[in-house]
Amino acid sequence: MATKKKAAKPAAKKSVKKAAKPAASTEKKIKYVYTWGNGKADGNGSMKALLGGKGANLAEMTRIGLPVPPGFTITTEVCTYFYGHKKTYPAVLQAQMESGVRNMEKIMGCKFGDAKGMPLLVAVRSGARDSMPGMMDTILNLGLNDQTVLSLAAATKNERFAWDCYRRFIQMYGDVVLGVQKAEGEDHEPFEVVIEGFKHEKYGKDLVDSDLTAEDQQELVKRFKALVKQRTGKGFPNDPWDQLRGAAGAVFGSWMNDRAIVYRRKYNIPAEWGTAVNVQAMVYGNTGDTSGSGVAFTRNPANGVNEFYGEFLVNAQGEDVVAGVRTPEPVALMKKAMPKPFAELMKVRTILEKHFKDVQDVEFTVQEGKLFMLQTRNGKRTAAAALKFSMDMVKEKLIDWKTAVLRNPADQLDQLLAPIFDLAEVKKAKELAKGLPAGPGAASGKIYLNADRAAAAAEKGEVVLLVRNETSPEDLRGMIAAEGILTAKGGVSSHAALVARQMGKVCICGASAVEIDYDKKTVTVSGQVFKEGDYLSIDGTSGTVYGGQLKTAPSEIITGIVSNDKAAQKTEKFKSFLQLMKWCEQATKMGVRTNADTPEQTRIAVAFGATGIGLTRTEHMFFEGDRIDAMREMILATTLEARKAALAKLLPYQREDFTGIFTTLKGLPATIRLLDPPLHEFLPHSKEQQLDLSKKINVPVEKIIQRVHDLHEFNPMLGHRGCRLGIAYPEITEMQARAIFEAAADVAKKKIKVKPEVMIPLVGFQKEFDLQAEIVHRVAKEVMSEKKVKFDYQVGTMIEVPRGALTADEIAKGAEFFSFGTNDLTQTALGVSRDDMGAFLMPYIENEVFKKNPFATLDATGVGQLMETAVAKGRSTRPNIKLGICGEHGGDPDSVKFCHTLGLNYVSCSPYRVPVARLAAAQAAIEEAAKAPAAKPAKKAAKKAAPAKKAAKKVAKKK
Amino acid sequence: MATKKKAAKPAAKKSVKKAAKPAASTEKKIKYVYTWGNGKADGNGSMKALLGGKGANLAEMTRIGLPVPPGFTITTEVCTYFYGHKKTYPAVLQAQMESGVRNMEKIMGCKFGDAKGMPLLVAVRSGARDSMPGMMDTILNLGLNDQTVLSLAAATKNERFAWDCYRRFIQMYGDVVLGVQKAEGEDHEPFEVVIEGFKHEKYGKDLVDSDLTAEDQQELVKRFKALVKQRTGKGFPNDPWDQLRGAAGAVFGSWMNDRAIVYRRKYNIPAEWGTAVNVQAMVYGNTGDTSGSGVAFTRNPANGVNEFYGEFLVNAQGEDVVAGVRTPEPVALMKKAMPKPFAELMKVRTILEKHFKDVQDVEFTVQEGKLFMLQTRNGKRTAAAALKFSMDMVKEKLIDWKTAVLRNPADQLDQLLAPIFDLAEVKKAKELAKGLPAGPGAASGKIYLNADRAAAAAEKGEVVLLVRNETSPEDLRGMIAAEGILTAKGGVSSHAALVARQMGKVCICGASAVEIDYDKKTVTVSGQVFKEGDYLSIDGTSGTVYGGQLKTAPSEIITGIVSNDKAAQKTEKFKSFLQLMKWCEQATKMGVRTNADTPEQTRIAVAFGATGIGLTRTEHMFFEGDRIDAMREMILATTLEARKAALAKLLPYQREDFTGIFTTLKGLPATIRLLDPPLHEFLPHSKEQQLDLSKKINVPVEKIIQRVHDLHEFNPMLGHRGCRLGIAYPEITEMQARAIFEAAADVAKKKIKVKPEVMIPLVGFQKEFDLQAEIVHRVAKEVMSEKKVKFDYQVGTMIEVPRGALTADEIAKGAEFFSFGTNDLTQTALGVSRDDMGAFLMPYIENEVFKKNPFATLDATGVGQLMETAVAKGRSTRPNIKLGICGEHGGDPDSVKFCHTLGLNYVSCSPYRVPVARLAAAQAAIEEAAKAPAAKPAKKAAKKAAPAKKAAKKVAKKK
Repeated sequence: MATKKKAAKPAAKKSVKKAAKPAASTEKKIKYVYTWGNGKADGNGSMKALLGGKGANLAEMTRIGLPVPPGFTITTEVCTYFYGHKKTYPAVLQAQMESGVRNMEKIMGCKFGDAKGMPLLVAVRSGARDSMPGMMDTILNLGLNDQTVLSLAAATKNERFAWDCYRRFIQMYGDVVLGVQKAEGEDHEPFEVVIEGFKHEKYGKDLVDSDLTAEDQQELVKRFKALVKQRTGKGFPNDPWDQLRGAAGAVFGSWMNDRAIVYRRKYNIPAEWGTAVNVQAMVYGNTGDTSGSGVAFTRNPANGVNEFYGEFLVNAQGEDVVAGVRTPEPVALMKKAMPKPFAELMKVRTILEKHFKDVQDVEFTVQEGKLFMLQTRNGKRTAAAALKFSMDMVKEKLIDWKTAVLRNPADQLDQLLAPIFDLAEVKKAKELAKGLPAGPGAASGKIYLNADRAAAAAEKGEVVLLVRNETSPEDLRGMIAAEGILTAKGGVSSHAALVARQMGKVCICGASAVEIDYDKKTVTVSGQVFKEGDYLSIDGTSGTVYGGQLKTAPSEIITGIVSNDKAAQKTEKFKSFLQLMKWCEQATKMGVRTNADTPEQTRIAVAFGATGIGLTRTEHMFFEGDRIDAMREMILATTLEARKAALAKLLPYQREDFTGIFTTLKGLPATIRLLDPPLHEFLPHSKEQQLDLSKKINVPVEKIIQRVHDLHEFNPMLGHRGCRLGIAYPEITEMQARAIFEAAADVAKKKIKVKPEVMIPLVGFQKEFDLQAEIVHRVAKEVMSEKKVKFDYQVGTMIEVPRGALTADEIAKGAEFFSFGTNDLTQTALGVSRDDMGAFLMPYIENEVFKKNPFATLDATGVGQLMETAVAKGRSTRPNIKLGICGEHGGDPDSVKFCHTLGLNYVSCSPYRVPVARLAAAQAAIEEAAKAPAAKPAKKAAKKAAPAKKAAKKVAKKK
Repeated sequence: MATKKKAAKPAAKKSVKKAAKPAASTEKKIKYVYTWGNGKADGNGSMKALLGGKGANLAEMTRIGLPVPPGFTITTEVCTYFYGHKKTYPAVLQAQMESGVRNMEKIMGCKFGDAKGMPLLVAVRSGARDSMPGMMDTILNLGLNDQTVLSLAAATKNERFAWDCYRRFIQMYGDVVLGVQKAEGEDHEPFEVVIEGFKHEKYGKDLVDSDLTAEDQQELVKRFKALVKQRTGKGFPNDPWDQLRGAAGAVFGSWMNDRAIVYRRKYNIPAEWGTAVNVQAMVYGNTGDTSGSGVAFTRNPANGVNEFYGEFLVNAQGEDVVAGVRTPEPVALMKKAMPKPFAELMKVRTILEKHFKDVQDVEFTVQEGKLFMLQTRNGKRTAAAALKFSMDMVKEKLIDWKTAVLRNPADQLDQLLAPIFDLAEVKKAKELAKGLPAGPGAASGKIYLNADRAAAAAEKGEVVLLVRNETSPEDLRGMIAAEGILTAKGGVSSHAALVARQMGKVCICGASAVEIDYDKKTVTVSGQVFKEGDYLSIDGTSGTVYGGQLKTAPSEIITGIVSNDKAAQKTEKFKSFLQLMKWCEQATKMGVRTNADTPEQTRIAVAFGATGIGLTRTEHMFFEGDRIDAMREMILATTLEARKAALAKLLPYQREDFTGIFTTLKGLPATIRLLDPPLHEFLPHSKEQQLDLSKKINVPVEKIIQRVHDLHEFNPMLGHRGCRLGIAYPEITEMQARAIFEAAADVAKKKIKVKPEVMIPLVGFQKEFDLQAEIVHRVAKEVMSEKKVKFDYQVGTMIEVPRGALTADEIAKGAEFFSFGTNDLTQTALGVSRDDMGAFLMPYIENEVFKKNPFATLDATGVGQLMETAVAKGRSTRPNIKLGICGEHGGDPDSVKFCHTLGLNYVSCSPYRVPVARLAAAQAAIEEAAKAPAAKPAKKAAKKAAPAKKAAKKVAKKK
């Protein structure tokens, strides 16, 4: 084999220079390469935006003296440049990379491309700000070629090792950088086909790679290179610098591959962030039995237990651990196999946690008894583990309580509240369909396709799942009776999802593989037919539908809080949860109210810490029992007198509801919205129901049909609803105001404080508000005088159409509070119907028109702008105006944080979302406070880092 | 009869003082009473806001030396005070009124309440800024009581006259001020009952009032006073000051009576304006045959002819002329009866027109040969008269051409274009129903209830009216074929109205008395049944439906412009119209484009002066002939290939349409909107049509039904439409872009300039625009390269959802123009569905929530605010962005003026609205220019007033 005498030198600058002409002068000053090694680093752990997570933490580990092989990071700015300049690099990059390589060479005492002595080999890894599947991951052993493989063999005196490295390198590089991959129609990876072919050809059988000899590996190198030539038309790059530039290009290129794009979309990572490239000197876990590689968490990320947790493989490179070719062993067993490196690792574990003050997810390699750290990052964790970590670390004085609050991701908190399926059962169960996870938790029950039958079955003691194409207010009875709800249509903010979240029901929406035949009373899922009464199981956390019955267990937090279960209250999980909520209370500026329509919902929400009711939808009350008949009578009335007579029947019901709610609230405020939905929602739409109603209330069925027809609307969302009803029929407003105030008076007389806040819905014009408020104020006065009792009350409005926001200064002249109805405000501001969005949601998500579903997370740019306007204008005429939000967004952490920045007084959400909102609100307050005096804590952190560094140095010295 | 020696003095100050305590100190300085008389006046003609129209003009006439009886005006501020202070007056008012009365006494040489000499009697009249029916009008002869009636009799030596005046006064005052009116269940006015009773009692028969003797009148006074006592429980006020204050209170009170409120609502007069009260010394037209009263216009207000035009009654007070008890004579006859006063009147006529520079509507009284002017105001006029006045006055050098432009009310201009019914026939015809006037003009034809039959009948040469509950795009053929359209449902901006206006069809919408039975093919209106083929006649200017056939005549302007009729073009009306449009051209800053979908519509609009197309709705093109089948095939396609194949069939049709339009435009720009409506609008919804389609395109009917079902939307307005279609199906955008650009290329090759502007509809997110614009730009490039021709084009968007306006800065990065789609922007900003608004429109108008229908006139406060934001933001990133409006508001004068203030480049409206928009745009520009150098023209006006004053003095002296 011919060997060249000189170390490889940067040869192919041509393309780089050519491409980078335009902005060369300014780029010269920019530092694109950050080196680390031997206790020193250009970067540090705080520079994740520039260096990526991996690069920043490698620099940080180096700085605190941990044993990290030297290397350098090509910054994310190069990625941005790359995509901004037709996939070329800044002119100065090559020189900076050369300087980076020289630094590695100095520390490692060997040369990149050295064909004489031990060559410097490098690993090239991607490293975005957040770790990201789908990106090109790792290329090991880069720098090998037909010459350096020989010097490697000579230097290590291990020919087999050298050729194995080279063979692996060609395979990895050929696959990832050169794109030699399984083509359409091929069953296996082409390199694997070559290996298998060789094995059969030479040995007549399959054998493990480690049984291949040095000669075998050498032969495979030859065949691999031929394969590359055949597939790409070019030879495998021999120049290590060509290899390096190629690998860096592949990393940057992978930033825009499909999987990466899909992932970013899912987790809302902006494409602008870009990725960094890390080039690091190779250390070898595959040099024999005193070497090895492993991955581990400093604590158990599944349940939070404080134990070192991970896997380890003797005589293996890092990717072998994850690749699953050999089964790795629990990392604890390393203690016996390699006691010294393991002890060092335990010290590193302590140093890392002390330094990063969080549970770390690390990769390491042991090369001939010496430990090297290859990566550290904050470990991903379940909600339960996050809770335990945060509690334990406060006790350990690693973090303060505010940090503990921040450590619990608000959007995962409901995992803690949800019932779960027994994991063993899930493994056996058949996954039939997927839908949108609309109400977290697990439910297993007999399916019913209609509210009445579902309710009847539940009364008989059956556990029921209500399965519908979609739900409407008429299904409410069935939804209440059901353990879980499954719909074939509708999104995460459909009626079913909204009600399910409010009630804390398990719910999957829009499971389009579910076909429902109402006539035959069957549900067909993926070809399997289920009759009414058959079992289905739904996991509302993941959106999965299973056939048959699976065992579930409720969360201790739910039973402890909602059912006041003493045993549950003694569990660590429950206590931790309470502690977390207590801390939230301490941190929070914004109140968290609840959307509740019944005393029971109110009770639950208050138990979860709600500071009042932000929204009572009075119309939900009209669907219970006989009430709907009186309601329908009212709608069918043709004279004012008849309408008033029907309303008089509804009054006592409403009063009773409000009495219950006020009594439960014990002085907490209750925002009660006057009738909002269009009247046709209350009328029966099937001929059968219409005939029924006709008999019941003695109105000719033709008249009912006619009225249904008259009330039909093309766009009911923008139709005769909200205050438009109260203005057309002031007597409805009058009845509702009377019911509210009579209830308030009755409760106040029992020496229980009441704070009713009457909310006029859908106000876009000052006059609308004034007309309705006048009635409310008049009735309040009347009732106080009739009942001879005084109580405080307020009249305000829901800001839910853009014009309301735009004229908030005028409306605030009369309105004492605004509550942002962000569901409708989003529908109107965006001109998007929540119920019809399904048709274009997918292309909108795919094309990144919607970065997030605007009905799940507030569109801060558009809807948020209207809210800002409304806040500013509202306060301009009424400085002390009370401001809140009662749309579904009130339970979404990001939206809650946005509301905090707007300075709202409270958010309101469904009872079971109250803890989530409280956590998000607390986090927003803590984050805001942290931003204000930014300099101080930074210094503190630097100070704290010092002892960690000392301890780490000790570890490093021992090696 | 007992007589008191002293003149009545202000007695009842008590209530005034008591009520006015709070703000007395500041009020003292305010001037609440403005006097005039004897050539001097506190006020002048420009003070209409403070003095009302009548008061300001009485002051002005006095100032220019015309013979006006002295008096004073109580300002509109007192009205505001009155309603702001529980119907009481400012404390200082009484003193100021006393001083006003003293001024009259001095000029008239007699005293208010004088029981010895000739008493001063006064007339009390209301006077708002604009004259307003429904307000309390006039009380004459105030100041009479049991004492002054005697002194009046003595001074005039006419006992009968004195008692007649007194009797009239009690009747008027009793009715208007004291509320002695016909009660429920009564058939006649109570005072009339007393008179009739007396006549029969004494004479045993009916006789005219003038036959009653002084004694009779005296007896009636007694009986009238008894009636007042009986009805009100109080005696008739004897003190003239009590009478005066009572009358003023009645005027102010009438500002809020039902009729006045209804009128204000109709004409959008704000309630805040208030009314003034005018108190004027009485002159008597009823003292004998040398006296009389009259009303007249200085020119003919019906046809514009320059002739003195009015009515006159000898020996009568003013209200006799209007009351219709005696039939007045044409004012021209006065020349013979009273040559001297008539000659004076002719001089006054000239002075008035010279001074006010407009046609005046005057009231006058002749008292014993002496002329007195009681009122002047600008005369109301028809559109035809306005046109002639303005042309004539420019010729007479009374006004300049800019003033002439302002003198033609833009909202009446379409009267000039509309065909009209023969007036004689209308008088005979039976008015069957009323609906909303949605397309001006008159049409008479055979009714058809379905588009196909209407089209078939039209082909046979029948004149057709299409009668439907509502129309949809499927009815388009029938609408084109019909002379007029009548719908039972829908508002002035329903589909029917929109299309009718665009086509210039006569249209009445929402005539709810019209009941349609599609099965029986009958229309029942007010009990009368019409079969298909029977005649109905509709007046779309007034909204009236008549039974049977009425003769119509087309407007000369239409035949002159649209049909190029030479005879019509020679008429004065046509020439005046052209002159007006020429002046508009000179004044206008803003362009006026048209909304047109066909070459024919384009041709008409360009003939009317359109400067291009502001909106071509491509979807209208899909309904013609076979196209709809290809469209449906496209919608029913399940694969991309099938969809592309169907689109390929549509391409040549679209290209052909665009070719026609570009050719007609000859280089004027054309904004073409890509497909906008939801796809389900194109599918057949009846089973029959679905079966038809199934056979035609060979797709199973079940599949069609399923697709219709799948495409159903709850709120289609907010659903899968606009650019959401193009993003889900980029191939549609591609086809449309290709059709546009291929047409552009073909026409450009013929050396005809083309300026296509491709408009992406319903954009709310920058990304939406960018995704679609990318396709359009790519196709443009492709086509230019394929066809080897270059042409300019632009890509822009419609701003029609609030988010689009709020993020206009982002969108403008790519968009070269914005066109405000104010129909949808109004729907979304207000959260109001145009199609469903009918249910609450009436209570909203009645309660003044909507001051104007926001779909007819832009809601400047709400929607306008969004437009302002979009204009500012759009210009912030693209300073030269082209801005227009293509919503229906583009043809509404007020909205056009608002667009002018926003600085839009153009408005766009339906072809027949182009002249209206041109006129409004010109007026906006002229008004704006007039505002800028405000000081100069004011001086000029004062200067010009001087000679008029001299001339007037001459007239006055002669008397």
